[in-house]
Amino acid sequence: MGSRLKKIAILGSTGSIGRQTLEVVAAHPDRFQVVALAAGENLRLLAEQIGKFRPQMAALKDSTKRDKLRDMVPGGWASTGSLELLGGRQGLIEIVRHPEVDLVVVATAGAAGLEPTIAALREGKNVALANKEALVMAGEHVIAAARDHGASILPIDSEHSAIWQCLRGDGDDRGGEGGNSVARLILTASGGAFRDASPAELEHVTAADALRHPNWLMGKKVTIDSATLMNKGLEVIEAHWLFDAPFANIAIVIHRESIVHSMVEFVDGSVKAQLGPPDMRLPIQYALSYPDRLATSAFPKLDLTKLGRLTFEEPEMGRFPCLKLALQAGERGGTYPAVLSAADDVAVGLFLAGRIGFTEIAGLVARVLDRHQVVTHPSIEDILAADRWARGELLSSEVF
Amino acid sequence: MGSRLKKIAILGSTGSIGRQTLEVVAAHPDRFQVVALAAGENLRLLAEQIGKFRPQMAALKDSTKRDKLRDMVPGGWASTGSLELLGGRQGLIEIVRHPEVDLVVVATAGAAGLEPTIAALREGKNVALANKEALVMAGEHVIAAARDHGASILPIDSEHSAIWQCLRGDGDDRGGEGGNSVARLILTASGGAFRDASPAELEHVTAADALRHPNWLMGKKVTIDSATLMNKGLEVIEAHWLFDAPFANIAIVIHRESIVHSMVEFVDGSVKAQLGPPDMRLPIQYALSYPDRLATSAFPKLDLTKLGRLTFEEPEMGRFPCLKLALQAGERGGTYPAVLSAADDVAVGLFLAGRIGFTEIAGLVARVLDRHQVVTHPSIEDILAADRWARGELLSSEVF
Repeated sequence: MGSRLKKIAILGSTGSIGRQTLEVVAAHPDRFQVVALAAGENLRLLAEQIGKFRPQMAALKDSTKRDKLRDMVPGGWASTGSLELLGGRQGLIEIVRHPEVDLVVVATAGAAGLEPTIAALREGKNVALANKEALVMAGEHVIAAARDHGASILPIDSEHSAIWQCLRGDGDDRGGEGGNSVARLILTASGGAFRDASPAELEHVTAADALRHPNWLMGKKVTIDSATLMNKGLEVIEAHWLFDAPFANIAIVIHRESIVHSMVEFVDGSVKAQLGPPDMRLPIQYALSYPDRLATSAFPKLDLTKLGRLTFEEPEMGRFPCLKLALQAGERGGTYPAVLSAADDVAVGLFLAGRIGFTEIAGLVARVLDRHQVVTHPSIEDILAADRWARGELLSSEVF
Repeated sequence: MGSRLKKIAILGSTGSIGRQTLEVVAAHPDRFQVVALAAGENLRLLAEQIGKFRPQMAALKDSTKRDKLRDMVPGGWASTGSLELLGGRQGLIEIVRHPEVDLVVVATAGAAGLEPTIAALREGKNVALANKEALVMAGEHVIAAARDHGASILPIDSEHSAIWQCLRGDGDDRGGEGGNSVARLILTASGGAFRDASPAELEHVTAADALRHPNWLMGKKVTIDSATLMNKGLEVIEAHWLFDAPFANIAIVIHRESIVHSMVEFVDGSVKAQLGPPDMRLPIQYALSYPDRLATSAFPKLDLTKLGRLTFEEPEMGRFPCLKLALQAGERGGTYPAVLSAADDVAVGLFLAGRIGFTEIAGLVARVLDRHQVVTHPSIEDILAADRWARGELLSSEVF
């Protein structure tokens, strides 16, 4: 690679992962160049990012707000040069297909990440993937798009980045006796904000309580999903697709310190773990720089002797009904994972709005799953229809 | 590789590593075949091993004992077929050069491992190396022999095996920005049998106390070296040569549980660790099967949730004078490491015989190092001469 500039498009640039991606880019201007930014609601921040990173393209979810955005760019719109301003779903597709783009970072949350992910892969572009829904809802299609068009999915989630790093040169490209040398993937979970709460306490926790995640700086939805361990269930489904691992070979270990980001056990009993401070900029940078590793002094370094110890516990499955629902939906397959993901999205929204209690999230998701008529081997359209159905169903009088 | 049989010579087959190597071979008869065994004093066990593994060659340190060995083979000498019985230093050289041998396991202790290691590498044979002295005494020559003849050194020590596994596909074959992507090697140390003893208690500990190592089943010399941390110092010198790492980039962390066998920190701050139960058969098998990993049900599996926690501490350098001596000798280079290793060997022998106290080991080694006139860039002959000199010097009236 040497010093060739990697040209990057960031979908979801104003969210938590998007902002941290731009920090990584800013730390290595000799390696990365932002050629496109896309965002949803946060016009002010997008305008700032445009002013600072000078992309060739930008896209807004709501294209009617383009004029408003133009007025907000620091230094005035004329200073952006020939910036092409796109909008809506079609804007994202145009960006990922643009010949100037080498790597697409998909950091949008929700089902909106699915279409551009597949479009980028079908164009043979590598995708650094932070969006969970693409793989959870449509893993089969996403993996097929990558495989059929020689593109790679570079995971940004700390757990999947850890597994990907552990598999590097060992299990990804060659197996043992004529087969795969991987025995198990072991995902670590912090246990979330309520890992020590009693069942009675859980009935009364609020969104504000949940958002005090002990280790990671993350978006709101992910932080609640961490507390229910739904997040870990979704990650198991992603790992299943990313690393072609049967569900039976994916384990979860509670590791409160969030230092060991995940592990791989090989067939000979050897275990490799990837460790680091809980800082998303590390896996983001790895996905961007892969296959190189870039020296950085900007991020904190790990000192195990200062930490003193790392702990590991079995997750109590009874305590985490959302995890159980996610693992079941993953194993059942078809449109179940899409329904799970959409129902959870709506239920978490209700909890964040103070309309339901924390322990009601699982029950609502379970009722929607129960009422779903699964489509096996669904098309993308089937999947998006299941997503829409689940969102409506959760709010219907029969469920909510 | 598929099912091609790897043909193996084991030097030091009756020692701890030799015996465990034969366990690994016996567990995978479809992958490994023993073609040569060599041993020192334990005739009875060597005769048993010959009876069981049916090698084509065997070598005895003392060739005058060949007739005695012949009488001891179970089933009688005639049953061994055309076994070629060799002896002495020349016997080892003949074995490692034999065209039937694919891989040489050097599990002999002490300086005796040096010559056959270099002879094997110069013949282009891969060497699975458990002998510390070859790299400590003559790292420059050993590495040059491997490089110049396209042979590989496959480390068997759990720490070096861990680092080797962590570097696999990541740091061994490609670097970051035009350079090496490895920032630091982090060797773990159990702290040995006396890690919690007070300085006063250390004055009175006996060889029997020291031989109760908390985690590993090892030979006597290594167990004492673990308690002084001399062992860890020697491993740092080995790591320096094996992985081309400056001494400043090799750290030591006390890790009592001996589960994390060592770690690599990369330039981006990511850390990879290799974990497993403290069982030498795992790194032995990895060295034998490399680049494959072989499934095995014979060895214990790691369950981190049963262990519950892993701890990490800074080593108190003041407590471990032997470690300090070893690091100094490594950095100074030349014949110093050979003198260190030889003096330690004699001093540990005196401790095991009850002739000196545990805390006297470091003082004796330090006095011999002080009196040494170093040869920089020594030849193999210079190194062997320094070894002999140190052994004599330690027992001289000026030192002992």
